[in-house]
Amino acid sequence: MRGTGKAEIFVMLAHPVAHAKSPGIFNEIFEQKGLDSLMVPLSCRPEDFEAFWAGITAAENIRGVIISVPYKVAVYHKCTAAHDRAARVQSANSVRRLPDGSWYADNFDGVGFIDGLKAGGHQIAGRRILQVGAGGAGASLAYCLAEAGAEEIRLADIDTGRAEKLAALVAQVFPKCRIQVGEAEPSGMHMAINATPVGMHAGDPLPLDVSRLTPDMTVVDIIMEPAETPLLKAAKEIGCRIQPGRPMMDFQVRAMSEFFDIEGKGRGNG
Amino acid sequence: MRGTGKAEIFVMLAHPVAHAKSPGIFNEIFEQKGLDSLMVPLSCRPEDFEAFWAGITAAENIRGVIISVPYKVAVYHKCTAAHDRAARVQSANSVRRLPDGSWYADNFDGVGFIDGLKAGGHQIAGRRILQVGAGGAGASLAYCLAEAGAEEIRLADIDTGRAEKLAALVAQVFPKCRIQVGEAEPSGMHMAINATPVGMHAGDPLPLDVSRLTPDMTVVDIIMEPAETPLLKAAKEIGCRIQPGRPMMDFQVRAMSEFFDIEGKGRGNG
Repeated sequence: MRGTGKAEIFVMLAHPVAHAKSPGIFNEIFEQKGLDSLMVPLSCRPEDFEAFWAGITAAENIRGVIISVPYKVAVYHKCTAAHDRAARVQSANSVRRLPDGSWYADNFDGVGFIDGLKAGGHQIAGRRILQVGAGGAGASLAYCLAEAGAEEIRLADIDTGRAEKLAALVAQVFPKCRIQVGEAEPSGMHMAINATPVGMHAGDPLPLDVSRLTPDMTVVDIIMEPAETPLLKAAKEIGCRIQPGRPMMDFQVRAMSEFFDIEGKGRGNG
Repeated sequence: MRGTGKAEIFVMLAHPVAHAKSPGIFNEIFEQKGLDSLMVPLSCRPEDFEAFWAGITAAENIRGVIISVPYKVAVYHKCTAAHDRAARVQSANSVRRLPDGSWYADNFDGVGFIDGLKAGGHQIAGRRILQVGAGGAGASLAYCLAEAGAEEIRLADIDTGRAEKLAALVAQVFPKCRIQVGEAEPSGMHMAINATPVGMHAGDPLPLDVSRLTPDMTVVDIIMEPAETPLLKAAKEIGCRIQPGRPMMDFQVRAMSEFFDIEGKGRGNG
């Protein structure tokens, strides 16, 4: 039975939260493993975040929280310790309770993305990559692409200042990777990645100049819905290899399960 | 699937919460009805209650909270409106969200108790009743027994002042019921009720003088575990009719389901 008084409680925080996929995914994992655990979707208005987080912290049987838009940075700053992956982007998408009741931050956006690319058979080491989007998820991606050995990253963002700031930070940590700010066009690149939300809504423009795509390129989108964004559709028609957003989510879930120590539990694992 | 991002969230608050039965009961109801809802057991230390409650209030998709020891009075005082049943005992065991985000309090301790007695075929109207225990649950019981037409209530508590205060309050609201403070012994009564926790733990003394029980009396315990308390065992041996604690819980769950508007939902109900 899932959800008794003894249940381990996890929270998924976003605003809004109704569209979030991870609560359903984790509750299905708990169900399948026969675990008495709950992943509880919760939402609060930005003006109520301080009170909300103090309350989550006061709830002593909440073991971990998954965080999505717009609270990743705010939650990171509530933590007393963090993995380097979270610290370098000052952003948490997963936190777990430390023995003293405070929170430890990690961020699996980039990890999930890289693991998803690798599982899809896409190479990163030695590749030249266009990345469009230098926001929250984009920052995690850029660090992880550089860490995974990308030879060059062209970083494009409508906010050029934001892109320049991120490029400088990544270059500091991974000096072997040539990272510079440029246009949202893929000429000369092996791979083009959309790390913006552009393409989620009908009528969105294309996030990058698809007229410069060539069949030898790989095109990646982090958007999960629609599964085939207009960008991926255009890339497919050109003959590019494509990678949709879902694997990034699946591999994040796997990393979070390990982080929350869910992996080894449940039926058949003692 | 239960527990997606769209789930209606309910909380069960107690400290500690691991032993609480209602989370499992409600989650099973949700499961059976095919509802995408969760009852989340949460606990906080008394010194963290203020922060905890502010957080619960900030979590905009939490629709209702069930409250147990030691927070019923504290939560009542956080509410902006209340049913008379909760107001007269200044204690909430269920609160639901009002349209403006504030909380409405109710208390089904007494209602569940009376409904359970009636379902067990026990009459209250016109009866003389010994009630031992004038604490939180006891207060709800005394009001509801008087409301249900008890002719006389003998109220016993190790804290005589507390019993006297409660007797005076009940008498004010239900002047037709003779309620007075007395000893924990059932002579001359039709029914003897244990409304204390005495009998939950091995080695507990008996909550009332069983040597004065006679076979024509009904003996009631609000304790759920053990199902047969030493008091009920002694009463059974004497030949009394007995009523255990579980029906009070079951009828409270039914009342709470109506309060939270769960009753009419789910499979087969549109």
